[in-house]
Amino acid sequence: MKVYINGEWKEDAVVSVYDRGFMYGEGIYESLRTYNGRLFAPRQHYERLKRSAQLMGLPCKLNYDELISIIQDGIKNLDKDVTIRVMVTTGNGKEPNLLIYIMELQAPHSDLYIYGVDVGISRLRKIPSICLPSTLKTTSHAYLSLARREKGEFYEIIFLNYQGFVAEGTMSNVFLVENGTLVTPSLESDILDGITRRVVIDLARSLGISVEERFVNVDELFNCSELFLTRTSAGIIPVRRIESRTIFENEPSGLTILLSDNFKDYIFNEEKYW
Amino acid sequence: MKVYINGEWKEDAVVSVYDRGFMYGEGIYESLRTYNGRLFAPRQHYERLKRSAQLMGLPCKLNYDELISIIQDGIKNLDKDVTIRVMVTTGNGKEPNLLIYIMELQAPHSDLYIYGVDVGISRLRKIPSICLPSTLKTTSHAYLSLARREKGEFYEIIFLNYQGFVAEGTMSNVFLVENGTLVTPSLESDILDGITRRVVIDLARSLGISVEERFVNVDELFNCSELFLTRTSAGIIPVRRIESRTIFENEPSGLTILLSDNFKDYIFNEEKYW
Amino acid sequence: MKVYINGEWKEDAVVSVYDRGFMYGEGIYESLRTYNGRLFAPRQHYERLKRSAQLMGLPCKLNYDELISIIQDGIKNLDKDVTIRVMVTTGNGKEPNLLIYIMELQAPHSDLYIYGVDVGISRLRKIPSICLPSTLKTTSHAYLSLARREKGEFYEIIFLNYQGFVAEGTMSNVFLVENGTLVTPSLESDILDGITRRVVIDLARSLGISVEERFVNVDELFNCSELFLTRTSAGIIPVRRIESRTIFENEPSGLTILLSDNFKDYIFNEEKYW
Amino acid sequence: MKVYINGEWKEDAVVSVYDRGFMYGEGIYESLRTYNGRLFAPRQHYERLKRSAQLMGLPCKLNYDELISIIQDGIKNLDKDVTIRVMVTTGNGKEPNLLIYIMELQAPHSDLYIYGVDVGISRLRKIPSICLPSTLKTTSHAYLSLARREKGEFYEIIFLNYQGFVAEGTMSNVFLVENGTLVTPSLESDILDGITRRVVIDLARSLGISVEERFVNVDELFNCSELFLTRTSAGIIPVRRIESRTIFENEPSGLTILLSDNFKDYIFNEEKYW
Repeated sequence: MKVYINGEWKEDAVVSVYDRGFMYGEGIYESLRTYNGRLFAPRQHYERLKRSAQLMGLPCKLNYDELISIIQDGIKNLDKDVTIRVMVTTGNGKEPNLLIYIMELQAPHSDLYIYGVDVGISRLRKIPSICLPSTLKTTSHAYLSLARREKGEFYEIIFLNYQGFVAEGTMSNVFLVENGTLVTPSLESDILDGITRRVVIDLARSLGISVEERFVNVDELFNCSELFLTRTSAGIIPVRRIESRTIFENEPSGLTILLSDNFKDYIFNEEKYW
Repeated sequence: MKVYINGEWKEDAVVSVYDRGFMYGEGIYESLRTYNGRLFAPRQHYERLKRSAQLMGLPCKLNYDELISIIQDGIKNLDKDVTIRVMVTTGNGKEPNLLIYIMELQAPHSDLYIYGVDVGISRLRKIPSICLPSTLKTTSHAYLSLARREKGEFYEIIFLNYQGFVAEGTMSNVFLVENGTLVTPSLESDILDGITRRVVIDLARSLGISVEERFVNVDELFNCSELFLTRTSAGIIPVRRIESRTIFENEPSGLTILLSDNFKDYIFNEEKYW
Repeated sequence: MKVYINGEWKEDAVVSVYDRGFMYGEGIYESLRTYNGRLFAPRQHYERLKRSAQLMGLPCKLNYDELISIIQDGIKNLDKDVTIRVMVTTGNGKEPNLLIYIMELQAPHSDLYIYGVDVGISRLRKIPSICLPSTLKTTSHAYLSLARREKGEFYEIIFLNYQGFVAEGTMSNVFLVENGTLVTPSLESDILDGITRRVVIDLARSLGISVEERFVNVDELFNCSELFLTRTSAGIIPVRRIESRTIFENEPSGLTILLSDNFKDYIFNEEKYW
Repeated sequence: MKVYINGEWKEDAVVSVYDRGFMYGEGIYESLRTYNGRLFAPRQHYERLKRSAQLMGLPCKLNYDELISIIQDGIKNLDKDVTIRVMVTTGNGKEPNLLIYIMELQAPHSDLYIYGVDVGISRLRKIPSICLPSTLKTTSHAYLSLARREKGEFYEIIFLNYQGFVAEGTMSNVFLVENGTLVTPSLESDILDGITRRVVIDLARSLGISVEERFVNVDELFNCSELFLTRTSAGIIPVRRIESRTIFENEPSGLTILLSDNFKDYIFNEEKYW
């Protein structure tokens, strides 16, 4: 909808074809969102952006207040919630390029929370952290595009890591329920420490639910009683089917619903997210 | 120096900030060069570009003759040899974006062929083909930038693959000499099948030198008698030192020199490269 | 039932506690069986034994005819089919120790061919060939004992390899059927090239069934229409259930039955197995 | 020299050929030694034996005092130091088999402490803990025999782990010195937590030496200033040469000698080892 570049908000904009973000994928980003017009978890996203910047050797010229103030300026007076993509490229190699995109919220239709989504398992594996740190959110996303292309019929594609343990989706984290316990791949599984993932773990614990962060085997995806995804733009998304295995027949239930029902109240009441 | 975009050659040019090559690294490329003004190995580079395009699901709108004719147009009347970067991004997702950059040849000073270069070993490993096919030349190059940043003092950084076998440099292939045999990592080592790599293998065999393409252990880098790199823009580059181990004291010799001395004659006489 | 050692058949026997097969697991073996009193695939087992012996540096003192003649002597006049374990240890380090055990056939009850068996997936992974060649049948089997201990409720436990692809069971090879195609892990999956595995592949092809030997993903075990195991002592064993997923409700059918029905005729008519 | 089996000390002894330790390598062991006739680190070895027994599902019928009292009985009145191998096999599957071997100390000639030893790098990799826990000392040692066979000219062969990081020798742990820091592979490198390894780490720290337990890259073996091995029977063994790279020309020096000179005093004064 609009984009901030070189100190200005514009309807559209261009960059030099010599920008190293364009030629070599030398860029980092974060995707934030608003809830009822308010920016969600800005501090947490800023910390991740800073960590990515350090890994890529990009100077962080704006401090937290400066960056957030630009974003607040961009989202004021909007009539619906949005996705905000903050992106920094190495530019011409001397001066980094900061862009802020205000975009339509990439949230699923509300139907999806009732019908759930179908997911597949990628034949490509998640890039190991020893090759590209999984904590680095880079714009070098060709491998995500490849994975999505391969199984277009699914809402989301789940990556296994190099050793064949469950990692994460192309745009979401994965949770499953086994015998009343909430299970999700640990950070050692070569995943990104998603902010909504962390919210769900904390929320579950606050509700007295037992949570395991550990290596998750593929067969657990096919033998669990519930399966759901988390992503910033969409919260908790129930999974109806994984490959040819149906997880639930009618409507999602159990912990998936318990956590979904409590999700917004929980984040709205946690000061650290605002 | 100049760039071809949207059907025109320009001094400088821009792309939309919404180009998916800029936002998500969804692009592919090839780097060609000229020798005495003539385009080297255009057919081989075109075949690789087509393979990359298929992997990324990019339509190849130009056939071989059309593409080469544009490049020929761009390099005519130049007074020195150049590097040509052909790059295709997914653009806005509907129409791919073709760019051709004519750039200064990234060749080492001629001194380097006598003094050799120093190389290090990356602490980051080459991305396995099961994650991102090593035959795909994508613009999603953040991992290369990370690796180069880490060991800035070296001319080149050599990647090991996930299993710890020698793979390739950030911009070159690796060869070593052991007991008179030329050894280089096999394609199964998660490497790109570099065109100059193939030239050197063929040239060596034509000279009666025994060549092994196989998994190469790290200790072989420290126990070999010769070590050199190959890359399109520079041909054969002798390695003087790897980490703290000196490979040669005075001047490069042996197969390194034999192959270098015969390199240009060999390629000029092979019709398939022109 | 009886054992051949030091040139003699005995009811029972002992070895020195200093035998390196006992102290260090330095031994190799093959398990053969009889059908109607006739030795099955002796030539194929001998070739594998010889390959194992070479890998372990054990001299093969007996040629094919000598070894088979001893075995024939041991199995003559038996009133039911048996398993024959041929085992060679490094002995005292100078003189290897040859043992031949004649043992009760480790075949499942005939009921199992109708009811099928339940299998689990091991949490331990198959040892990679780069650590211990999967073509080497060694007596160093502690990892098999560990895997069986872990999931005692199942008839068989399936190993994944280091990268998380399906490998093989602790005592069997694995086949599945997908869209009418017979699929089994390729030899590159760190498996043993089981003799019954090879029989089933050849038999299937002779019946016009399409066969794929390739990397098999874990999710395929949960999404296939048929699943069965092969092992020398038992032939083809249908799998009813894998972990909590039921593969068939009533009786095995499809290719499992087609192959089982043709199995004995096929091997009895193939001269190379006798 | 003598062996304890079935409650008795004997010159020589035998086991049934049906012992599962012989047929399937189902056994565990520990190697202890004496210093001046006194048993070194018995408590530590007992704890490791118990851990191995639990992993293999072997009942530990003897408590610490009972086992040590048998060993003390076996080593009394010996005129030189010995190696004691305590070994438990699953026996006939019902009753485990306990054996205690008193054997000549497998220590290098004292010359070796001055001249050092030559070591090679195995082409076989250490079995990953996800396949066979590296904390389990099993008698299933075929892979060690294979590795030693491959490079017979060296005193010791160093394994890399599956990912190509330095792991350990076939019978020793590995240390190196870089810029005055003592570096050794961490337990996450798929190594055994050797008792002498732990002694050396503790001793170094007590001397104010900086110690790093971490993933160690192969190239560090070729770029370090000192390299040594540790093993129970031999203490600290300097390495003169690794593959074709010479580590020291004349005599070992530096931390290798500092640690060696203080080794015996240190262990004799640590009550926990006696």
